[in-house]
Amino acid sequence: MSTYKPEESIEENERVKAVFDDIRKTRNSDFVNNMWYYIAFDEDLLERTWAEVKRVMAMPSEIDPLTKEMLYIAVSIANSCAYCVHSHTAAARAKGLTDGQHAEIIKIVALAAKTNHIANGLQIPTDEVFDKENS
Amino acid sequence: MSTYKPEESIEENERVKAVFDDIRKTRNSDFVNNMWYYIAFDEDLLERTWAEVKRVMAMPSEIDPLTKEMLYIAVSIANSCAYCVHSHTAAARAKGLTDGQHAEIIKIVALAAKTNHIANGLQIPTDEVFDKENS
Amino acid sequence: MSTYKPEESIEENERVKAVFDDIRKTRNSDFVNNMWYYIAFDEDLLERTWAEVKRVMAMPSEIDPLTKEMLYIAVSIANSCAYCVHSHTAAARAKGLTDGQHAEIIKIVALAAKTNHIANGLQIPTDEVFDKENS
Amino acid sequence: MSTYKPEESIEENERVKAVFDDIRKTRNSDFVNNMWYYIAFDEDLLERTWAEVKRVMAMPSEIDPLTKEMLYIAVSIANSCAYCVHSHTAAARAKGLTDGQHAEIIKIVALAAKTNHIANGLQIPTDEVFDKENS
Amino acid sequence: MSTYKPEESIEENERVKAVFDDIRKTRNSDFVNNMWYYIAFDEDLLERTWAEVKRVMAMPSEIDPLTKEMLYIAVSIANSCAYCVHSHTAAARAKGLTDGQHAEIIKIVALAAKTNHIANGLQIPTDEVFDKENS
Amino acid sequence: MSTYKPEESIEENERVKAVFDDIRKTRNSDFVNNMWYYIAFDEDLLERTWAEVKRVMAMPSEIDPLTKEMLYIAVSIANSCAYCVHSHTAAARAKGLTDGQHAEIIKIVALAAKTNHIANGLQIPTDEVFDKENS
Repeated sequence: MSTYKPEESIEENERVKAVFDDIRKTRNSDFVNNMWYYIAFDEDLLERTWAEVKRVMAMPSEIDPLTKEMLYIAVSIANSCAYCVHSHTAAARAKGLTDGQHAEIIKIVALAAKTNHIANGLQIPTDEVFDKENS
Repeated sequence: MSTYKPEESIEENERVKAVFDDIRKTRNSDFVNNMWYYIAFDEDLLERTWAEVKRVMAMPSEIDPLTKEMLYIAVSIANSCAYCVHSHTAAARAKGLTDGQHAEIIKIVALAAKTNHIANGLQIPTDEVFDKENS
Repeated sequence: MSTYKPEESIEENERVKAVFDDIRKTRNSDFVNNMWYYIAFDEDLLERTWAEVKRVMAMPSEIDPLTKEMLYIAVSIANSCAYCVHSHTAAARAKGLTDGQHAEIIKIVALAAKTNHIANGLQIPTDEVFDKENS
Repeated sequence: MSTYKPEESIEENERVKAVFDDIRKTRNSDFVNNMWYYIAFDEDLLERTWAEVKRVMAMPSEIDPLTKEMLYIAVSIANSCAYCVHSHTAAARAKGLTDGQHAEIIKIVALAAKTNHIANGLQIPTDEVFDKENS
Repeated sequence: MSTYKPEESIEENERVKAVFDDIRKTRNSDFVNNMWYYIAFDEDLLERTWAEVKRVMAMPSEIDPLTKEMLYIAVSIANSCAYCVHSHTAAARAKGLTDGQHAEIIKIVALAAKTNHIANGLQIPTDEVFDKENS
Repeated sequence: MSTYKPEESIEENERVKAVFDDIRKTRNSDFVNNMWYYIAFDEDLLERTWAEVKRVMAMPSEIDPLTKEMLYIAVSIANSCAYCVHSHTAAARAKGLTDGQHAEIIKIVALAAKTNHIANGLQIPTDEVFDKENS
């Protein structure tokens, strides 16, 4: 079920085709996942979302590609986005995520959620020493 | 403001003192942050929370210590836990987090939140190929 | 899957029938969506929820009907409620939502989620000028 | 800081005064907490919110008053509402919440958050036997 | 759909079998729900999660077993965890949850969510009297 | 408190100054709010965030400027972002938000949160008729 149904002929749109071609080239794979088909009804949404994903996730930077996917998974779990948990777990596996690392991500995310709720439950005041404002 | 006020004499409790001593030893620092003072009113809560944090975050494993803190920050942001964002950003800095990496975490977390909301907004169906159930 | 299964004969209950009839009349349609069938096992829950939805969403007020549905969609996305995203996107379409507006809602919600996570990630202090308390 | 500042003369409004008087009478206390002052700028919002809180929380029912406050605390923690965590922890204490029970709520909420994130992280499929739809 | 597929032979692993046997014995039932099958790929995750669930939820304490399940449901709803809502609603029913109590939980959780959003929307300042820090 | 402290001389950086100048020009005001000071430590984060906010929020489109701010507020409340609730409520007021509309936003957001939790609590199945996939 979805709130929008992509048309089969979506790639006949030149702007859509250009993005899809770049996705395939960047990932070195013919497969384009549903995310891109479902946002293609608005070319601006498609082009800008892909541009940001490519720049943040696919460009070389100080954080390595696998760690980036781990962070993406962590946020997607906390925000209850089933689609994103699936797609980025698959992406992480494609970048070398082992079963041991997968289990560890789950443990860290679960522990963080646990202490998040403890801190919010007791409304623990932030230690002055953590404040960069006055350091 | 908090919903519990730790007593000043909390470390006179032997079980509490044992945990605080282990925190100081494990971190090689005299400083014990508020989290532990505020949950010390229940020794069981204190002992078990510390045991889990120590095991998951401080023990050598397949994911390096700085990446663990990054994941913790990501979850804490998504769960809106101010205390945890502060304490784990400080912990990450102590483990070498650079300003460039900090900015990158923010960019990845922000992008993930963005596509989480896009996927949930359009209720994009998960691609069959992501399903491990039938692979 | 659901945690409660409505009985087929639910409308034989007079209080339930009265609410269902009012839903049909208010919406000028025979269709009653699942929300109402699933909460009908408790007449009080059914009557009061419908009364509030009717008052807030269907009564003339300072905010027009389509904008109300847009706001409902925005909250439902952020709260990860698949049912509500579906039902209120359908309701918005029935009230004239265009594809262009739909895409724009998604862009605004996604951008808000992005800056929500940036502000929470850096724990940006609120500008004094925004405070109505001291204005 | 707040996004609205209640006027000092707010109780000169008769509809507001009627609600405030009922709050004082129902709670058998002169104290009215900020929640009611801050929503009093809209009489309809004030009257209806109080009517619902009174009916759901203060009327005798199948769930006892202290358990109701516990549930309120649990939801408020998960939704990161600092105000509500504070006000309902105070309300629970007024209804007899012990330190031991407080610690236990925190442990249950924290454990639930932990397994919520585990289940969402692995996208664990719901067991058929839990489905009431086909039972 | 899931991001991990448990192997059929999972119980041939002795550590896994020991946990599954304890789950069956503790619950006095042969049925083991999916949660445990899906986290069994990591024995440590399985053993520690079960140990915590057993200790917090199954051991006699100041909060009765049915109330514990109610709290678990409340958090799981707020965190949008479909699996946990299903499994703990089933667990609550097995411990005697009536339809009337079920409806009441829904009403309390829904009201809490409502006032959580009101308080966050107006950024209502916490009353000084709720602060335990200065009491 | 914040996890980053902007340097006073931040506008001496030319890229930062260019963005700040454009913010002032676009808003026709000398005031630049904290959001931009706190993300200015990373020029890329600053430039791209502002470019997106300007494009989505300040450019003429199918949704009027005040409605856009209302949607932003709704998402920020649901995501518990205090900073964003404050800044976008101020922005909405600057664009003409009346007290009556403000109260109505709160009522709609609160009602949506309420039914979000009801639907998630009962795991209400989505009506087939809402599915665009098979329409």
